[in-house]
Amino acid sequence: MKNISILGATGSVGTQTLDVLKKEREKFKLIAISGNKNYEKLIAIIEDFNPKYVAVSDKSTYKKVKAYCVEQNKKSEVLEGMKGLIQISTLNEVDIVVTSIVGMIGLIPTLEAIKAGKDIALANKETLVTGGQLVMSEAKKNNVNILPVDSEHSAIFQCLQGNDINSIDKILLTASGGPFRGKKKEDLFNIKPEEAIKHPNWNMGRKISIDSSTLINKGLEVIEAHWLFNIDYKNIQVLIHPESVIHSMVEYKDGSVIAQLSAADMRLPIQYALNYPSRENNLIEKLDFYKIKSLTFKKPDFVTFRGLNLAYEAGKQGGIMPTILNAANELAVELFLQEKISYLKIIDIIEECMNKFENTNQINLHAILETEKDVKRFIKHKYNV
Amino acid sequence: MKNISILGATGSVGTQTLDVLKKEREKFKLIAISGNKNYEKLIAIIEDFNPKYVAVSDKSTYKKVKAYCVEQNKKSEVLEGMKGLIQISTLNEVDIVVTSIVGMIGLIPTLEAIKAGKDIALANKETLVTGGQLVMSEAKKNNVNILPVDSEHSAIFQCLQGNDINSIDKILLTASGGPFRGKKKEDLFNIKPEEAIKHPNWNMGRKISIDSSTLINKGLEVIEAHWLFNIDYKNIQVLIHPESVIHSMVEYKDGSVIAQLSAADMRLPIQYALNYPSRENNLIEKLDFYKIKSLTFKKPDFVTFRGLNLAYEAGKQGGIMPTILNAANELAVELFLQEKISYLKIIDIIEECMNKFENTNQINLHAILETEKDVKRFIKHKYNV
Repeated sequence: MKNISILGATGSVGTQTLDVLKKEREKFKLIAISGNKNYEKLIAIIEDFNPKYVAVSDKSTYKKVKAYCVEQNKKSEVLEGMKGLIQISTLNEVDIVVTSIVGMIGLIPTLEAIKAGKDIALANKETLVTGGQLVMSEAKKNNVNILPVDSEHSAIFQCLQGNDINSIDKILLTASGGPFRGKKKEDLFNIKPEEAIKHPNWNMGRKISIDSSTLINKGLEVIEAHWLFNIDYKNIQVLIHPESVIHSMVEYKDGSVIAQLSAADMRLPIQYALNYPSRENNLIEKLDFYKIKSLTFKKPDFVTFRGLNLAYEAGKQGGIMPTILNAANELAVELFLQEKISYLKIIDIIEECMNKFENTNQINLHAILETEKDVKRFIKHKYNV
Repeated sequence: MKNISILGATGSVGTQTLDVLKKEREKFKLIAISGNKNYEKLIAIIEDFNPKYVAVSDKSTYKKVKAYCVEQNKKSEVLEGMKGLIQISTLNEVDIVVTSIVGMIGLIPTLEAIKAGKDIALANKETLVTGGQLVMSEAKKNNVNILPVDSEHSAIFQCLQGNDINSIDKILLTASGGPFRGKKKEDLFNIKPEEAIKHPNWNMGRKISIDSSTLINKGLEVIEAHWLFNIDYKNIQVLIHPESVIHSMVEYKDGSVIAQLSAADMRLPIQYALNYPSRENNLIEKLDFYKIKSLTFKKPDFVTFRGLNLAYEAGKQGGIMPTILNAANELAVELFLQEKISYLKIIDIIEECMNKFENTNQINLHAILETEKDVKRFIKHKYNV
């Protein structure tokens, strides 16, 4: 029996993690969850799983959840804010912390969980994008496993099993290309949020769907792959693969390429991370190659989707630059979703911030968090939002 | 330094094995080789590698090679016939025996090598098709590795690394479909040997090229996979994949599929087997996915290529039946290459022999060798050849 804590239990990955736990109740016990404003989902999880701890970031939701637990005589202890998040990340009885919380808020509790020796099922992109250096060195020091939970890094992780990491030649990170694959810049002037969040193959949250449409998501994954697998940027190749059947590949120095394929369903990487190194019975639909017919590949269009280049650039520069890129993107996407800026402006703002702010290699948690604030303050001021 | 003995050094796989050894002379020492009638190649290998032992099956070639070594003052000891083959399979100083010899003649020395505790780099199909039960139980008893050297089984073997064999759900054995993919029976009446040996992707020997064209080769590989990986026939699925980029795949019970891809070059599986579990620098061309564009899949045409069904059937029946299928095919292909029978007659003869001969589960080396003779005698008599 493995004891699980989920940071961000009400989001897309959190919900799918709960689905995995539901189907393997004899193997996993849900000890703690966190949420923000989604009161209904938090209550539903409490009813279903009776977790010992519930951390709620949003103050008024916290109060409502707390009141509910008192009224309904629930045993769940309700915790508040970042303190609560850190508490449920470091509980003695927890074996694996699933970091499915969205945004840079995930970095601090993830670092605390690692220091407490917890294995991490990592779904929070920002953790490695902004704090890759800190996180990986803490993970090494504390001998904890960082088990990737998105489909691409899980694919790479699976393709690495039984192989020496030093015999990797290249990582081939596949990308569906998003809803605007094949489009040119001039087609993208008047894109509305509802068009950009329509992902062709994956059912995901709004923020990550926009990031997929700009290929910034793939760029963030390039940076993650760099840290997770200790690979030079020049050896990470993005490959457009519209069918989203091959979730990524590893090319070894002997010329052999190992690929991982499956239905596009996040429950597989979640299940693999939680059961690692075992494989359990499938929750997801199996592939039928007699029906698949064809898998196609293409070079990304680095001109139209120049955000991908910016991410490579930020990654190669290293230091605080990926934090600048990520913070700029985070706010720009939010502004686009609120229809305060145009679609193409998202990438312009990222570039502007990367030019505006000085890079530094002095990386610590404080520098990351301060930079995030500075970048967002600059954007808000400049665009008067 | 690993010491190598190659059974069948002058054939297609043997020659490519020598190419691998040439490029990694600091890692491998060629101790012994065998050949049959190809005097020129045997002499060239002696000149290049100075092996300690040279076994020659054909009597007159044996005499010529022996005379050459005396005249040229070569230190190679020249051995004769099956006795010589067994001797070079069991040498104390040898670590790995590469069984690239073609035909059922490979079975006895392979079994002797296993009994002598040698790891086997297995390229001889007949070994497992006819003697799978004997070979795998001897391998287990003597704790030797059977390292597959054809591209499909090497692919499966690579896809299994780091995974528990009990978590396999299915093996997807890919097949190019051969030169007659897409053809119907009526297109195949007047096929000539030179048409049938033109394989679209692989450069192989004549016998195996014909077997590829009839899909009997794939059927033999199904039987091999059954023995190598201890998988039920119902869990081995053949998949037509004309590009020969994916060399096979393993589907695990969680729905994840691991695939191995590379250029179609036998030197990769040879190199992998010899270096296992390490991977070394590539001898083969690397894949360029920006150029590959598309990988396609299809269900095999079990009606036109009914030899594949016969192989599944022989495998499922087990016992001596795969030996009957294999012996019938071996002679029928020979007769076709000599233009003594028509192309479609190859499969008719296999079916005829499978119906004619009784199956038995009493499998031993004697039964296998006697059945082979009986089947071939029957065909020669009936077809007056």
